[in-house]
Amino acid sequence: MTPRVIGLAGGTASGKTTAARGLLAALGDRAVLLTHDRYYRSLPEGRNPAMWNFDHPDALETNLLATHIDELVAGREVAIPTYAFDRHQREPTSEWTRIEPRPIIVVEGILVLADEGLRTRMHHRVFVQTPDDVRLVRRIRRDVAERGRGVDDILAQYMATVRPMHEQFVAPSRQHAHLVLDGTRPVQELVARLSAVVAGA
Amino acid sequence: MTPRVIGLAGGTASGKTTAARGLLAALGDRAVLLTHDRYYRSLPEGRNPAMWNFDHPDALETNLLATHIDELVAGREVAIPTYAFDRHQREPTSEWTRIEPRPIIVVEGILVLADEGLRTRMHHRVFVQTPDDVRLVRRIRRDVAERGRGVDDILAQYMATVRPMHEQFVAPSRQHAHLVLDGTRPVQELVARLSAVVAGA
Repeated sequence: MTPRVIGLAGGTASGKTTAARGLLAALGDRAVLLTHDRYYRSLPEGRNPAMWNFDHPDALETNLLATHIDELVAGREVAIPTYAFDRHQREPTSEWTRIEPRPIIVVEGILVLADEGLRTRMHHRVFVQTPDDVRLVRRIRRDVAERGRGVDDILAQYMATVRPMHEQFVAPSRQHAHLVLDGTRPVQELVARLSAVVAGA
Repeated sequence: MTPRVIGLAGGTASGKTTAARGLLAALGDRAVLLTHDRYYRSLPEGRNPAMWNFDHPDALETNLLATHIDELVAGREVAIPTYAFDRHQREPTSEWTRIEPRPIIVVEGILVLADEGLRTRMHHRVFVQTPDDVRLVRRIRRDVAERGRGVDDILAQYMATVRPMHEQFVAPSRQHAHLVLDGTRPVQELVARLSAVVAGA
């Protein structure tokens, strides 16, 4: 049976990654997760990361992700990139992660429904919708707690790139979803809804 | 000529207070500002301010504000409350501020269009509309810079009371506005729009 590709998008801190991880845990060996974030291009030498737009589609090597989906669907193993978020650099291929084909391929990221090439490869498209201010609250809490960033920094980046790219690319991509989930619901509920999608896909 | 009453509402950090101050500066002696915030009730003894809902209509003595509008419209001086935000207590009447009648009375606050008694006293109603996440960014910056509060605290209060009260009372009150202004525009533009309202009111 041909693997089924499930796309899962939503704004930053919408809850999509948590839901994706819950789904993967529920599916075990039947599924594999492809995270768009792993396909970031290396920050060019000499560029200031604080001035870089990590939320623009051009920041990601989406063609490589599309190729990897095709390979997995064709039943072939792939090696997916490893990205060093602290250095903003893609690791050499010796550090990439080998992924085996599975019946369910989950493709997750803020921009995965914004790219036509990715969309045409998906059998089902899901968008996690969460109010903008709730997402900002979650993002600040996460960035302060996990990444030790200062709030001035987080808010400046939010207004300079995160928010405008969301308005331009992420929010309009919701129109391509077969299913919109409410990201303010408990994660168990989101996972149950996604599991139902997988069962029907 | 009977004074004209202009109501000016909008969510927290929407830009309404800045716009109101700009308008008052432009009008000089012709106008007076009544800020709903001055009508906060004292926090009852023994209550924890962190657990108090300062964004619910019951936190304010709105009837007193309505009486003061009536007095000013009738051409009589009033004394408006002074509220100590650090102690969450209204000051004794000896500390209140005397206000003389003026041709233009501007009534400003997040909830001034949510109260029917206030609405019926207004000749013109304006709502400053600003996206929720932009208002949150502004509020965090202000609370950190001016009030020295911690971001955990600010976000907890936002989710516990500020946001739900906005959804329940403030956002729906926009329907009562004659004019909705875009709070992301420069303050000079907002003041110009308000000045035009006053000229026509």
